[in-house]
Amino acid sequence: MTARYRADELRDFAAGLFEAGGMPRDRADIVAHYMVEADLMGHDTHGLNLAPLYLDDLESGRMAAAGEPETVRDTGATVVVDGGWLSGLWLIDRAIDIALDRVATYGTVTVVMRRAHHSGCLAAFLEKATARGRMIMLSSSAPAARAVAPHGSYEPVYTPDPLAFGIPTEGDPVLVDISASTTTMNLGFRLQAAGKRFGGPWLIDGAGRATDDPNLFSSDAPGAIMPLGGLDLGHKGFGLGIFVEALTSGLGGYGRADAPDSSPIGCAIYLQVIDPDAFGGGEDFRRQTTWFAEACRAAKVPEGRPAVRMPGDGALARRRDAVENGVPLHPAIYPGLEPWAEKAGLAMPAPIG
Amino acid sequence: MTARYRADELRDFAAGLFEAGGMPRDRADIVAHYMVEADLMGHDTHGLNLAPLYLDDLESGRMAAAGEPETVRDTGATVVVDGGWLSGLWLIDRAIDIALDRVATYGTVTVVMRRAHHSGCLAAFLEKATARGRMIMLSSSAPAARAVAPHGSYEPVYTPDPLAFGIPTEGDPVLVDISASTTTMNLGFRLQAAGKRFGGPWLIDGAGRATDDPNLFSSDAPGAIMPLGGLDLGHKGFGLGIFVEALTSGLGGYGRADAPDSSPIGCAIYLQVIDPDAFGGGEDFRRQTTWFAEACRAAKVPEGRPAVRMPGDGALARRRDAVENGVPLHPAIYPGLEPWAEKAGLAMPAPIG
Repeated sequence: MTARYRADELRDFAAGLFEAGGMPRDRADIVAHYMVEADLMGHDTHGLNLAPLYLDDLESGRMAAAGEPETVRDTGATVVVDGGWLSGLWLIDRAIDIALDRVATYGTVTVVMRRAHHSGCLAAFLEKATARGRMIMLSSSAPAARAVAPHGSYEPVYTPDPLAFGIPTEGDPVLVDISASTTTMNLGFRLQAAGKRFGGPWLIDGAGRATDDPNLFSSDAPGAIMPLGGLDLGHKGFGLGIFVEALTSGLGGYGRADAPDSSPIGCAIYLQVIDPDAFGGGEDFRRQTTWFAEACRAAKVPEGRPAVRMPGDGALARRRDAVENGVPLHPAIYPGLEPWAEKAGLAMPAPIG
Repeated sequence: MTARYRADELRDFAAGLFEAGGMPRDRADIVAHYMVEADLMGHDTHGLNLAPLYLDDLESGRMAAAGEPETVRDTGATVVVDGGWLSGLWLIDRAIDIALDRVATYGTVTVVMRRAHHSGCLAAFLEKATARGRMIMLSSSAPAARAVAPHGSYEPVYTPDPLAFGIPTEGDPVLVDISASTTTMNLGFRLQAAGKRFGGPWLIDGAGRATDDPNLFSSDAPGAIMPLGGLDLGHKGFGLGIFVEALTSGLGGYGRADAPDSSPIGCAIYLQVIDPDAFGGGEDFRRQTTWFAEACRAAKVPEGRPAVRMPGDGALARRRDAVENGVPLHPAIYPGLEPWAEKAGLAMPAPIG
């Protein structure tokens, strides 16, 4: 059985690690909050699993520990921030605050951040906006990394390019967190380490064949992750990835064209917060989104299969369970944290019960 | 060989049909322009192919021939329009004009249209914005139609929900026009009529099996179009469809919750125009998008396969050819127009050469 841990202990522990790495405690608390939030929601490749990577970048200076981001442009409704490789998690939290403060005035507020460190688990940020009745779109790309091939090619040019959408309803919000590719790099690393294969033929090899071999995209063998849609419909995922690249690196004005020598997980980040009251009104918005969610949940499924879940339903159920019964940590995560705990002089969190 | 026609003759002819149906000539010209534009670009299920459907709705009153749309809300940067079932093509053209006029002031301008008639071929509208250096996102859903099942279900609840993105570069723009589903209803109708099958297992039947049978989604047999991603990754296309439903019907405040008894191709439409100068600047934007397009076009492909094309490359090449050598019309299109030409007392366009 996977060991479980108390969420508040994990947060304190993670914040202590980042503080020991030189991050001001108030920022370390925010970073730790979103990392543990990802684990609470069961998105366990993008929670504490990433802490060793982040701490390593913090130690080498590829993540900036302190200092202020630079506002490149601020028109009120549109903001561009140069993150100076500060924590992407902290920068996103701050950007959502800016957008929420202003969105009643402008209707939509868009913040683009260039030169941010990794953006983490996008799903973890969405409720900050939905809890206030706003819709949010959040997306990122990693301009120094290449893992996904354009449709028709097997050569990696860009990244999985996640897109997340938070949509308020009369009940639980809908929390979508997908990527424009078939799968992600972090899942690939985990499967590689475990000697396992992907759940489907989501990569393409040098001969143009689909394969489930996770060794392909990080070895010298020709091959890459495919855009969402795969061999037959990959032009659709490719189009979506192009959209994300334009929103993040394009609007930010810094990206692949600059061949950044940053951490491979350095990010360009786009977010837009939308106030339904600037459109048809919050009440009618929630009436539509609630009707749609209920219609989907009630849709017929093949005999013996589980009912349709809206995106976020599973994550919110896992979080309720984790808050009550402790956070299950994937077995790969704990050992990766031990050397950092030792270095920081912190005790590892103790499993519950 | 498919017969070819002169683009200007097709436009005059189509405008004449809509004028005969009661549409003011200046609007009929705009509608005809975008329909023929779709055929010029080779998107031939969404060009003149749709004219009989539109003319039928015009005759029955399910498309309004004349009258003004109602502005429900206008904050400057956000606009909601009630289209009163006027032509979606004309409404989109008008909405892009509104957005382009204002976008230098607001940075982003968002227009949502409820109760519009069909939105046509979204790719045909994008260059209006990209030619002026703006980025555009355009999307629609059809609240009175059901063809796509939520991931995990086989019961149709929503529509293919197209998304289109126009992205300026230093050269040709990138023109993305995809759907959140594996395929579209209009392609299904054409394949059904021709007794053909889809290019992949893009539908789901009542037992949860993937199939390429186009009869499934419009017959009484249980089954539906799947979200993009299919059996293994359909949660991603489903998430994308939910996003489109929220942007279109949600922000418009009118949709499936109202069980509209309109034409099944009545639409809720969302568009946003973005001024890169309100972000990192147009020059840096185009530097990034151009670099990315070039890197994709240069990416290695399996031996004997064609080079990577950016979305829009094929359509723009087809249009250059069609302008010079005439527009090829899919064989299914011409016969559908003949009864309407007769009714309007118009001669059918003559093939070239």
